[in-house]
Amino acid sequence: MTEEILRDDLRFYFMSPCEKYKTRRQLPWKLAVQILKIFMITLQLILFGLNNQLVVSYKEENLLAFKNLFLKGYSGVDEDDYSISVYTKQSVYDSLHYVIDQYSQLRNLSVGPASYAEENGEFLPLIICKKSYKRGSVEPSEEPYDIDCINCKFFDFSRLLVDIEITFALKGINLQTVRSHELPDCYTFFVKIVFDNSCHSGKVKLTLDFDAVSSVCKNWKISGTAQKSTHYLLIFDGFVIIVCLSSAVLCTRSIILAVRLLQRFSSFCLENYNQKVCEDDQREFLNCWYILVIISDVMAVIGSILKMEIQAKSMTNYDVCSIFLGTSTLMVWVGVIRYLGYFEKYNVLILTMRAALPKVLRFCCCAGMIYLGYTFCGWIVLGPYHEKFEGLSRVAECLFSLVNGDDMFSTFAEFEQKNTMVWLFSRAYLYSFISLFIYMVLSLFIALITDAYETIKGYQTTGFPMTELQRFLLGQKEAETVHASVMLCCCKRYSI
Amino acid sequence: MTEEILRDDLRFYFMSPCEKYKTRRQLPWKLAVQILKIFMITLQLILFGLNNQLVVSYKEENLLAFKNLFLKGYSGVDEDDYSISVYTKQSVYDSLHYVIDQYSQLRNLSVGPASYAEENGEFLPLIICKKSYKRGSVEPSEEPYDIDCINCKFFDFSRLLVDIEITFALKGINLQTVRSHELPDCYTFFVKIVFDNSCHSGKVKLTLDFDAVSSVCKNWKISGTAQKSTHYLLIFDGFVIIVCLSSAVLCTRSIILAVRLLQRFSSFCLENYNQKVCEDDQREFLNCWYILVIISDVMAVIGSILKMEIQAKSMTNYDVCSIFLGTSTLMVWVGVIRYLGYFEKYNVLILTMRAALPKVLRFCCCAGMIYLGYTFCGWIVLGPYHEKFEGLSRVAECLFSLVNGDDMFSTFAEFEQKNTMVWLFSRAYLYSFISLFIYMVLSLFIALITDAYETIKGYQTTGFPMTELQRFLLGQKEAETVHASVMLCCCKRYSI
Amino acid sequence: MTEEILRDDLRFYFMSPCEKYKTRRQLPWKLAVQILKIFMITLQLILFGLNNQLVVSYKEENLLAFKNLFLKGYSGVDEDDYSISVYTKQSVYDSLHYVIDQYSQLRNLSVGPASYAEENGEFLPLIICKKSYKRGSVEPSEEPYDIDCINCKFFDFSRLLVDIEITFALKGINLQTVRSHELPDCYTFFVKIVFDNSCHSGKVKLTLDFDAVSSVCKNWKISGTAQKSTHYLLIFDGFVIIVCLSSAVLCTRSIILAVRLLQRFSSFCLENYNQKVCEDDQREFLNCWYILVIISDVMAVIGSILKMEIQAKSMTNYDVCSIFLGTSTLMVWVGVIRYLGYFEKYNVLILTMRAALPKVLRFCCCAGMIYLGYTFCGWIVLGPYHEKFEGLSRVAECLFSLVNGDDMFSTFAEFEQKNTMVWLFSRAYLYSFISLFIYMVLSLFIALITDAYETIKGYQTTGFPMTELQRFLLGQKEAETVHASVMLCCCKRYSI
Amino acid sequence: MTEEILRDDLRFYFMSPCEKYKTRRQLPWKLAVQILKIFMITLQLILFGLNNQLVVSYKEENLLAFKNLFLKGYSGVDEDDYSISVYTKQSVYDSLHYVIDQYSQLRNLSVGPASYAEENGEFLPLIICKKSYKRGSVEPSEEPYDIDCINCKFFDFSRLLVDIEITFALKGINLQTVRSHELPDCYTFFVKIVFDNSCHSGKVKLTLDFDAVSSVCKNWKISGTAQKSTHYLLIFDGFVIIVCLSSAVLCTRSIILAVRLLQRFSSFCLENYNQKVCEDDQREFLNCWYILVIISDVMAVIGSILKMEIQAKSMTNYDVCSIFLGTSTLMVWVGVIRYLGYFEKYNVLILTMRAALPKVLRFCCCAGMIYLGYTFCGWIVLGPYHEKFEGLSRVAECLFSLVNGDDMFSTFAEFEQKNTMVWLFSRAYLYSFISLFIYMVLSLFIALITDAYETIKGYQTTGFPMTELQRFLLGQKEAETVHASVMLCCCKRYSI
Repeated sequence: MTEEILRDDLRFYFMSPCEKYKTRRQLPWKLAVQILKIFMITLQLILFGLNNQLVVSYKEENLLAFKNLFLKGYSGVDEDDYSISVYTKQSVYDSLHYVIDQYSQLRNLSVGPASYAEENGEFLPLIICKKSYKRGSVEPSEEPYDIDCINCKFFDFSRLLVDIEITFALKGINLQTVRSHELPDCYTFFVKIVFDNSCHSGKVKLTLDFDAVSSVCKNWKISGTAQKSTHYLLIFDGFVIIVCLSSAVLCTRSIILAVRLLQRFSSFCLENYNQKVCEDDQREFLNCWYILVIISDVMAVIGSILKMEIQAKSMTNYDVCSIFLGTSTLMVWVGVIRYLGYFEKYNVLILTMRAALPKVLRFCCCAGMIYLGYTFCGWIVLGPYHEKFEGLSRVAECLFSLVNGDDMFSTFAEFEQKNTMVWLFSRAYLYSFISLFIYMVLSLFIALITDAYETIKGYQTTGFPMTELQRFLLGQKEAETVHASVMLCCCKRYSI
Repeated sequence: MTEEILRDDLRFYFMSPCEKYKTRRQLPWKLAVQILKIFMITLQLILFGLNNQLVVSYKEENLLAFKNLFLKGYSGVDEDDYSISVYTKQSVYDSLHYVIDQYSQLRNLSVGPASYAEENGEFLPLIICKKSYKRGSVEPSEEPYDIDCINCKFFDFSRLLVDIEITFALKGINLQTVRSHELPDCYTFFVKIVFDNSCHSGKVKLTLDFDAVSSVCKNWKISGTAQKSTHYLLIFDGFVIIVCLSSAVLCTRSIILAVRLLQRFSSFCLENYNQKVCEDDQREFLNCWYILVIISDVMAVIGSILKMEIQAKSMTNYDVCSIFLGTSTLMVWVGVIRYLGYFEKYNVLILTMRAALPKVLRFCCCAGMIYLGYTFCGWIVLGPYHEKFEGLSRVAECLFSLVNGDDMFSTFAEFEQKNTMVWLFSRAYLYSFISLFIYMVLSLFIALITDAYETIKGYQTTGFPMTELQRFLLGQKEAETVHASVMLCCCKRYSI
Repeated sequence: MTEEILRDDLRFYFMSPCEKYKTRRQLPWKLAVQILKIFMITLQLILFGLNNQLVVSYKEENLLAFKNLFLKGYSGVDEDDYSISVYTKQSVYDSLHYVIDQYSQLRNLSVGPASYAEENGEFLPLIICKKSYKRGSVEPSEEPYDIDCINCKFFDFSRLLVDIEITFALKGINLQTVRSHELPDCYTFFVKIVFDNSCHSGKVKLTLDFDAVSSVCKNWKISGTAQKSTHYLLIFDGFVIIVCLSSAVLCTRSIILAVRLLQRFSSFCLENYNQKVCEDDQREFLNCWYILVIISDVMAVIGSILKMEIQAKSMTNYDVCSIFLGTSTLMVWVGVIRYLGYFEKYNVLILTMRAALPKVLRFCCCAGMIYLGYTFCGWIVLGPYHEKFEGLSRVAECLFSLVNGDDMFSTFAEFEQKNTMVWLFSRAYLYSFISLFIYMVLSLFIALITDAYETIKGYQTTGFPMTELQRFLLGQKEAETVHASVMLCCCKRYSI
Repeated sequence: MTEEILRDDLRFYFMSPCEKYKTRRQLPWKLAVQILKIFMITLQLILFGLNNQLVVSYKEENLLAFKNLFLKGYSGVDEDDYSISVYTKQSVYDSLHYVIDQYSQLRNLSVGPASYAEENGEFLPLIICKKSYKRGSVEPSEEPYDIDCINCKFFDFSRLLVDIEITFALKGINLQTVRSHELPDCYTFFVKIVFDNSCHSGKVKLTLDFDAVSSVCKNWKISGTAQKSTHYLLIFDGFVIIVCLSSAVLCTRSIILAVRLLQRFSSFCLENYNQKVCEDDQREFLNCWYILVIISDVMAVIGSILKMEIQAKSMTNYDVCSIFLGTSTLMVWVGVIRYLGYFEKYNVLILTMRAALPKVLRFCCCAGMIYLGYTFCGWIVLGPYHEKFEGLSRVAECLFSLVNGDDMFSTFAEFEQKNTMVWLFSRAYLYSFISLFIYMVLSLFIALITDAYETIKGYQTTGFPMTELQRFLLGQKEAETVHASVMLCCCKRYSI
């Protein structure tokens, strides 16, 4: 009797939502919540993204406008990481005075609504700081710099100059939101212009960057009931949080149920057959999908809370919020595969990927050793001669691209034939690496996957190897006869 | 007796054109019409395309010429979606006056035959419109803009300015056609120059665009019999329409025939064997190729009619016409594969693709979920930092390209290391996506296709599994003996 | 007796050079000639190429120098197919006068040894021709142009102007050869500058091109015995011709021998077994490699003769010569595979490629239909919106690149979202094409090749299917016993 | 008895470190040394690379600064291999004077600490050398040049001018190291500016390059104990050398042991079974991994010594040092695979790659012939029309990239349709090459690898074929029974 009850409970536990409904008329709440969640999380993400886009483009255009206004000779495109570079003392002076001149007549120049920022009724000053190496003795424990901040324009160019920093603050207003009947956002831009001479190579690099802090507009008179839509958004976010929490709770409940069932089953096995439940069977009870769903839910809840904070202007860090929301959405969509796995024909593919994964990872490990070796070797030898080999992470990316057939010719071509030894080395390096990886490694991946696919297909016709648990589920008597249903239940076993 | 007649009719229906001719001396009219259609539709498309090309290049060069004439400081290449951008009030005024100056002395400037457009003997005016946000209260239901059109040059730059639009009309004549002894086309260009300040970011974007309306030239005296070739073209188009219609009629007839045969066969089965015709057999009668041909014919007819309208200058929308003509040509060429399927060796390949298609689509569905998840996640997190992740469709395209090994290094490289957290996320995101798709998903496609190919090859040696219909076609007695012909007819069955 | 002699002759004919030497001590002349030929032809090609390179770079630099000297505002890089474009009447006049001014003071300007060309002691004149459409009636049979050549600078800009051509001739000398102790070459450059207004779109395109005619330097006093090395080259070329001719003669002889043997064998078969020789066996006698060698030899001889003419300055067309030499070298290297086929392990691969080829071609044929359809469709619909779809051959190339995973993102990205309908069409078009070809077609290629490889591997262990000829070669009695040698000779049969 | 001892010794020799420890409690010194080596060599490489990077960026920025200072009209980006090019005599004079002017006022111009270099208290002079062809007779044995060095500015432009060289020396100091509390390095830059007219094509190419010689700073007063960290580095390098040497010694000892064992085994075989040891078994004794390790150790030692020399400023050649260090690191990481091979599941993959390698190489050989043919043919025919086909090595790289699906469209697109014959040839050439290699050759690689993988998988289930040595190791009696351990030891045999 106990055996039959346990068997029934286990069978029920391993059923698909559809079968559960057929057997015990249990409505698939969990499934419904998941489907609702997919739509809500995706919608929330899209709304957040569209809003984000406006803010980002506003900041980017402001940055560009400032560069055009304050950097003399700025061409509209940045060189490398800095905006422009100057090579003569005269042009350093000119650039410096240009910044100050433009700043002083900003109101008449700019087409945007930028103006000087105030604090407590006073304008924030423009500050010029000069950093140079200290003359005289340098103690190891000491900072080797002299920093000297000035408010006037005159300054002297010394051989020991490290950099000059100009900082000032400007105000701006983002009127775009007015069109969607929302309140405009006000921004304070803390602009910092750096003349970087730290390399002492005869090239001074100019960079302009700012921190944009958004705040509620004060001195602007805006009437009308423009603020409502924000309320709707907050309500929507709250609803998303509720759905995610309920999804997490339902999944946690299922996991707890599973652990209890496992305990019952293992004590049953110990009593009746004096056998421990094997590890494979134990793993059946630990459903990885549930864990994925819970993680995704937790991330979505955190992301939604952060999003509400951003909307309330009490936080400006979009990145953390978007990483949480983005990752949870990715997981939610990946989770859909679980439900596709309930259809037998889709299941083959999922099982194949699951069966191939450990082999692929193991092989990645082997190939990774060679890859690492090539990365280090390429960085040290070719780094000084090729932009793509300048940093370790860049080398890794470059080699990864080469393996996948990208940017090969340009990688070859950028080596000049100046240094014959290095040129020959680069040829040997690139040809050997590409041939090895594309012709050997990638082909072996295909062999691995093909092999896994054929194994799974073979199981489908001859039946999957059965475990203790499955034999128990069938009941010993039926085990020989009901072959067809075995297969069905095996698939399920893999797909859950 | 009835059985024999039905069997004969069915056999005849499933024969290839060649066999039909051998058996009943029926000439393959349908085949002949199809072959004629391929040549005619392709020829028509090429003629239309060559003509289209001239018009397109004429418009493009005019656009470029106008940009060079009217936009101050235009470098010959557009920045992003706009032509140039200006950052100071002074340069906005300068650009504005430049447009008006250039417009007023256009006749002396332009090397082309452009002149001011007239309507009813009067010159169309140049209009300048200024749009700015309304001062004062904004009701949610109201448009928040003030629009103010002026004819003079003086205008004031306000903080609330949204955009300035300058519109005017010019005439042009496309003399290229004279060389092929055709009449020249006259064009009216409705030019619109926009100073876009809607972002209020300190950057005003200038765009120039026009609507070109072609018309019959009036004030030009052109003599000679240049117009004839158009007549020939119209006759040719008419002939194409006739061929397509007759092809469509023939295919419709075949489908009707098939439906009748199916009815006879199913009533016969019901009477004699008390069996319903299974779905697989029913599908044999519904020939997908015929449907493809009919769709293609209908599109070709619509396209040809639109083409005639364009030639008669009563329509200027090339795009709709070209989509109809292009799609029908694509379908016609794809239809050729059907006839290649009558050769056994070609048939293997077609059957393989047909057998693999559902599996491939099913797998695309699984992979598509992960793909969608990555798309949303990439857009929200990386969008603000990378041009390629700016819009949802762009992200999808970028990921699709990455899967196929394109533009990988540049995707990696464009992330600056400014924001370490996002940089790390981008690495994890890209490496995981690319590895998963290239090493797992693409390899599995190969496994699927290889498997399908081997299945079909196996059938070729052991014989395809037979359906009811085929057994009936053979006649029960012959069924065991005539093994060779089974195979032949099975192939046919698949290829039709 | 006759049978034994015939069998021996046949066996000898189908032996490898090595076996021939072992059996009848026949030295492998043909092989020796081939090896000699490979080295000589490659050496000849390299010498020709290095010489060619000097001439090409000399011409290219001259072209660039002329563009910089004569085209006003030339930036050093060509726009599209033309050098620069101008948009106002004033800049057309300026460019025109600039050409004439620069030409008149060329001697003081140019850093190269360019000077005015003379003919019979008189300087060749600078000629300006103006082409415009005829006013008045245009008869279909008539040329619609008025051409008007002038020698002075004044000219009037009319609305019907089609183009202006300026032609003049300059002399130059290539002194680079002096360094390798050869005589310098003298060149006459017939320069042609075109102001192209044929599109009448308000954009005049300027192009500069020249014909460079090389000749023996006359007015230069060069002493020394610099000319010798040319003699050596001519002797070397002659030697190459002799080697190629002897190779061709040897191969022709082998083919004639084969035909005679075939006749003897077929008459023997007819007499003794009353059987015709099957087509497969007949094909054994026709050695494709010999035909390849003969074609390659003929091309090498023609190429060498052309090369000698070029060295003797009686011809300047490098292209024809290089195509002949290049193709023959390609064939000679491909021919090496034949000798690799004598080693059993290499043979597997060659046989696989040979076995897979017809299937691959057949499949290319099917895929080609879809490819053609897409080409036409893409050209007509996307041509006006995308540079890559402008011409039919370009579309074909673009699609071919896409299939192989190149330039995908940029193809997607270049479509602007201006015209939504075309944008949607382009997405459907590109996604469907790429998916179909990369995931279905390319995978099927792999399936085909893998299948062919397994077939050949199977043959290697179980023995290749034997033909009549091979049974005869073995002698009926031995046929059953000497299984090992069958395999060996079968391989040979395939590899020849 | 001897047999048993020999068998035990042999068994012990072929054991993995883990088994050795279990059997004879022998600690795995070699393994420990290897692991230590991996970390130390990688750390050393990273330290060297980071240091190297600073120096390289310092030199690069200086080069850029000099180009901006001394080359008139330099845009910041090099054209091809030269910096800028000039086309008129006047601009040659201007550029020349500009160099001298800028040089004379360097101190007031440059933002870097560059100053005139001195030797023995005297400033090194600026030297201008002019090289032109000799007038008059040229003897083959003679140099055809006149070289003329001047110190003043006036010079005459002759038609025979080959080039002008300006050389001078400047001093600089790299202060970046001060930040990491190290002594700054002083540099002397021997700058050389060349006006290259050797082509006499009307285009003079300007190049600027320098040799940077680093030396200890003399006239700078730097106090503090900044030098210590260098000492630590030297100690670390010494430690690396010791580890590498001990690793090399341990491996050499193992090889000697192996040779002795082989001698014992072969004499035993000769005595007892009157058999020679077969080559396969002999190869078992020669462990390739040991040789790899020894080579890597030797290179690491040499590299470390060179690195110490560089740190001691007695050598400036980074390249040789980095090649030694890089290659040794690559080998060390590849060596890790050996230890992964001790795990059975990893071993499959390693064995597959090993089994496939000879076939892949053999096939590369066949494909290489066609590849070579295409390389020569492409170079000679397409070289003059396409940048990518200019040199033999470039053609090889371009074709290699095409095979891997890179840069295909741009290769197609760069051919202009100027010369129709060459254009047609280029299409035939590219389509045939790409199709042949991507659809035939690459697919065959996959077939080869798949085949090898299946062979190895088959061995794993049925047991690897046994050699004499393995039978001996098992002992004849056990040979039949202990099947499982055979497999284990076979794997080991392959993996060692």
